[in-house]
Amino acid sequence: MRNTQIHIQDDFWNEYSELVRRTVIPYQWEALNDRIEDAEPSHSIKNFRIAAGLEEGEFGGWIFQDSDLYKWLEAVAYSLRRHPDPGLEKIADEAIDLIGQAQHENGYLNTYFTIREPGKEWTNLYEAHELYCAGHLFEAAVAYYQATGKRKLLDISCRFADLIDSLFGTKPGQMKAYCGHPEVELALIKLYSVTGEERYLNLSLYFIDERGSRPNYYFEEWERRGRTNIWAQGEPNLEVYQSHLPVREQPVAVGHSVRAVYLYTAMADLARLTGDAKLREACERLWANTTGKQMYITGGIGATHLGEAFTFDYDLPNDTVYAETCASIGLIFWARRMLQLEAKSEYADVMERALYNNVLGSMAKDGKHFFYVNPLEVWPEASAKNPDRFHVKPVRQKWFGCSCCPPNVARLIGSLNDYIYDVSEDGRTVYAHLFIGSELSFEAAGRAVKLSQKSELPWNGRVEFSVAVPECGDGVSFELALRVPNWFQEGRPALKVNGEAVDYRVEKGYAKVERLWGDGDTVEWLLPIETKLIAAHPRIRADAGRAAIQRGPLVYCVEEADNGKPLSSLSLAEEPRLAERAVSDLLGGCVVIEGNGVVAENSGWEEDRPYRPLNKRSKEVRFKAIPYYLWGNREPGEMSVWLRY
Amino acid sequence: MRNTQIHIQDDFWNEYSELVRRTVIPYQWEALNDRIEDAEPSHSIKNFRIAAGLEEGEFGGWIFQDSDLYKWLEAVAYSLRRHPDPGLEKIADEAIDLIGQAQHENGYLNTYFTIREPGKEWTNLYEAHELYCAGHLFEAAVAYYQATGKRKLLDISCRFADLIDSLFGTKPGQMKAYCGHPEVELALIKLYSVTGEERYLNLSLYFIDERGSRPNYYFEEWERRGRTNIWAQGEPNLEVYQSHLPVREQPVAVGHSVRAVYLYTAMADLARLTGDAKLREACERLWANTTGKQMYITGGIGATHLGEAFTFDYDLPNDTVYAETCASIGLIFWARRMLQLEAKSEYADVMERALYNNVLGSMAKDGKHFFYVNPLEVWPEASAKNPDRFHVKPVRQKWFGCSCCPPNVARLIGSLNDYIYDVSEDGRTVYAHLFIGSELSFEAAGRAVKLSQKSELPWNGRVEFSVAVPECGDGVSFELALRVPNWFQEGRPALKVNGEAVDYRVEKGYAKVERLWGDGDTVEWLLPIETKLIAAHPRIRADAGRAAIQRGPLVYCVEEADNGKPLSSLSLAEEPRLAERAVSDLLGGCVVIEGNGVVAENSGWEEDRPYRPLNKRSKEVRFKAIPYYLWGNREPGEMSVWLRY
Repeated sequence: MRNTQIHIQDDFWNEYSELVRRTVIPYQWEALNDRIEDAEPSHSIKNFRIAAGLEEGEFGGWIFQDSDLYKWLEAVAYSLRRHPDPGLEKIADEAIDLIGQAQHENGYLNTYFTIREPGKEWTNLYEAHELYCAGHLFEAAVAYYQATGKRKLLDISCRFADLIDSLFGTKPGQMKAYCGHPEVELALIKLYSVTGEERYLNLSLYFIDERGSRPNYYFEEWERRGRTNIWAQGEPNLEVYQSHLPVREQPVAVGHSVRAVYLYTAMADLARLTGDAKLREACERLWANTTGKQMYITGGIGATHLGEAFTFDYDLPNDTVYAETCASIGLIFWARRMLQLEAKSEYADVMERALYNNVLGSMAKDGKHFFYVNPLEVWPEASAKNPDRFHVKPVRQKWFGCSCCPPNVARLIGSLNDYIYDVSEDGRTVYAHLFIGSELSFEAAGRAVKLSQKSELPWNGRVEFSVAVPECGDGVSFELALRVPNWFQEGRPALKVNGEAVDYRVEKGYAKVERLWGDGDTVEWLLPIETKLIAAHPRIRADAGRAAIQRGPLVYCVEEADNGKPLSSLSLAEEPRLAERAVSDLLGGCVVIEGNGVVAENSGWEEDRPYRPLNKRSKEVRFKAIPYYLWGNREPGEMSVWLRY
Repeated sequence: MRNTQIHIQDDFWNEYSELVRRTVIPYQWEALNDRIEDAEPSHSIKNFRIAAGLEEGEFGGWIFQDSDLYKWLEAVAYSLRRHPDPGLEKIADEAIDLIGQAQHENGYLNTYFTIREPGKEWTNLYEAHELYCAGHLFEAAVAYYQATGKRKLLDISCRFADLIDSLFGTKPGQMKAYCGHPEVELALIKLYSVTGEERYLNLSLYFIDERGSRPNYYFEEWERRGRTNIWAQGEPNLEVYQSHLPVREQPVAVGHSVRAVYLYTAMADLARLTGDAKLREACERLWANTTGKQMYITGGIGATHLGEAFTFDYDLPNDTVYAETCASIGLIFWARRMLQLEAKSEYADVMERALYNNVLGSMAKDGKHFFYVNPLEVWPEASAKNPDRFHVKPVRQKWFGCSCCPPNVARLIGSLNDYIYDVSEDGRTVYAHLFIGSELSFEAAGRAVKLSQKSELPWNGRVEFSVAVPECGDGVSFELALRVPNWFQEGRPALKVNGEAVDYRVEKGYAKVERLWGDGDTVEWLLPIETKLIAAHPRIRADAGRAAIQRGPLVYCVEEADNGKPLSSLSLAEEPRLAERAVSDLLGGCVVIEGNGVVAENSGWEEDRPYRPLNKRSKEVRFKAIPYYLWGNREPGEMSVWLRY
């Protein structure tokens, strides 16, 4: 793909990027420094200070705690790219200095092993997350270098990457091993892309190729450790770590869902960069399984909290769900790479679904509270009193002890501009994957082109593009490829060029118009945003007899605050007569959906009479649904995405 | 209550008591001796042999493994009472000899501590089950003495009970403590009832009174153990062990459900024997909560496998359910005691519900396979692949490693005759709680009376009683009190005496007829058995929008074998037109219910398209429901009790 420059300027998204810049990043910095009251301490900065010899103390937090600082630095880099901020940059530079001080002479860098288990480095690839943390370091370094031009973190990373490259591989004396938590694979590709160092690409490919080989390395090191693990009991569980089979042979998505999508992201990158057909087939097969059979309507993945994992096809319980924020973020990473492999709208559809629903919903409007688990049904009393649902929180939490999600949200939102467009290698086709107000600069036929997008999403479907080719009186020829979103709408969206309706062909889900574009040309892309009742595949048992509401990219939900409780008594009327209403005074402004519902008429049912003959008496009510991403921002209460019909 | 003699002679129940006698008891003996292939070994007999010094070896099985042998002996006693069998009695006598050999000089008896932790006796009341095992010993001893007149096991028990009585209490040097798993309390009352030894009654009352007192003993001994436990992490969880509050103050049923109902059983006994009004109030309050807000329609209790516990009011998930067999058996024990405290039909209603559904369903028709967990909804693939549901088995298992349930089923069915009648202390009122063919002998007004019951339950509602007072030409006066079962039927059942309709008054759910009964008098009690659609309380969310089928005492379910899959696609038609059909060739003969259902029409739905706009197209089908207790006796498949309407 061609190099491009992209800046977001969008009413809807500016609010979030400003929230990240003004609130999330400063708040997370406080968290990394253990200065948030009533929140579990992070220990991150403290660990680095201890490892650097600046402070005495014990290692604190999870074994992968270093990655929190790296993810924060990556988010800072994206913020600086958009909004230069010398004060913030200074803080980041100091943090980078600190990281440098914690690095060993030989390039090794990991505060857990430096502080708590020196000498035990690389003895537990299965669980110890050393390469995972290295990966987040590399990602941060690449982003920081691209944003500021400063090489220090990049140099730290290369030193560490060089060490890793010397330790792992098939040469005599090297470890034939790979990380229990994929991440370094995708990060090495980024490191390769800015340094041009092919060893990093090859190392990534080595980790991918080695994964799942026999005899399994995790068993070997487990034996060497005297059959002990950090967390898990018993022998290594290969499925949970996606190392049960060589990756090219894995038939379906299994195991820890974040690990899975980080792995698939690297696989898609490598399939593109190496042209490996088997790897690409595996990506496509795993994609079809993940998004076709194991994805919630909100773009959430992972059906069980036990192992934070996928379970099996069509098993998508709404109440005991996991749908971790980081897993949806990883799904977006993967979708982005699949789009680069092949511009097919289904990848962008999933990217958009996960972004506008699961991921956006994970963050409170205050930027200081986050969901780790993103349920589709909440009963607060059950979350408090039924241990099967303790993991489902009805209220977003402050910084978590295991706080992978908040910095992941920050770095995704901060880099959202990278997710909107692709320009084909030959400069002839410009793909618009997402409809987010923005400016794209690229080169076509040797000319600098600027494409501006204005979007009324997610509330209205009107999108407008304007072309600027100031220096070219005769215009520039290229193909504009606009995604036809799969929002269940019927018919084709209308497309107008300079006010005139224009026909277009659809290829792999993109509406394509090729022409000689002149300076000031405009394109209107009129997406029908309709409120739809959606059914789930009949094999998804949790949703049988139920419907969800979707309008454009947004999934809706009903909350106790609007509809009383128990929400389970509410069902859709035979004719729901759904109506949209824009409200400015609710949750910062949104479009609500109102409809006719039916509530079972159970007056006079004694409270300790559990069962009685069925009567179907019911009364009509008018219910109100709000966008799912806004749930849980009022008083805690029940919530449900799926409604009986 | 008066002494009575009761023998069951009933087409339906004879099959089960014969199954227990001919299959379950011999099979369990093989299991206790570790002679069942492919089943987890019990270690029970081996443990006793080692403790008795007859064999070398290590303790095997759970810390409470001794109780399996005691429960088996209790079941044997009931079987011998009904069916003398010198061969079986000899085996039992030998087992009793073995138990005697394992008893210490001072009366102490527990193979775990004898073999594995000598010297650590009584250091872990919280988890170590020593008093629990003692309780099962006492129950077995009482039953065996009553069945055979042999005192050996009773003497062993009394020696152990005397030791316990000397160790626990408020006197100086005694432990102010009680068992983490209630059981000894109810057993001591039985021991008191056959020995007349008031110390046993007082010891039971002491344990009940001490429970939940402050400071809490479990914390004290936990500190003494250096803050270690056998299983649980961290400090004692008092709610799980019903020791968070003095029992008289406990507002709702909490914690491990088997522990809870064993405790409540003893409380009800003691409330009756001591006339303690506060204790009785607590029993009534806990009863209302348990059966009114925390009981499945099958009579199952315990909503989560985590802690095998109650969760909270109206939380009754069908798929992640626990509903342990032993918990329903304990509920039956408790209901029996509540009936003795006050003859109110609601107690017998619950007893019958748990018996005919949860408990009966736990055993396969072959008597060799059992459910520990009794779900109301089964998806075999989820049981295999979703760890949240690993505890829900779609197929009954052979003898379990923790095999509390099978011998509990055996001892309940073997003693079912004790659950049918009560004769009031003054001999004036005869209560028939259950409608099971049987002969009752009792004394009224100084005369020997025999009351014979014939019952067509559970298939038909016709029940007939005949009175035999052979030696009294002038008859005997007493009141016959027949339970009016709460099967959701409308109107009053018809009652005829000697063929003539007779009016009756209903008192606390019992139809009462007082008269001078002559030899050969007959009473017909004509219960309308109708097939009913039942709704759950609107606050039971899991059942919202769904109905269950009940006919007489039997709850029904649909199975994949009859209705295909996914069962979640099936719902009740607007007019289900339920029809009953007696079939002789299905599952040993039963009444099936057929009805009109609706199956969503989803043809042409691609397998990896998870969501699409709702269409409500459907087709009518005729579904078939079978009694719940018979589920899972054909090829493994889906099952559901609740159907959408």
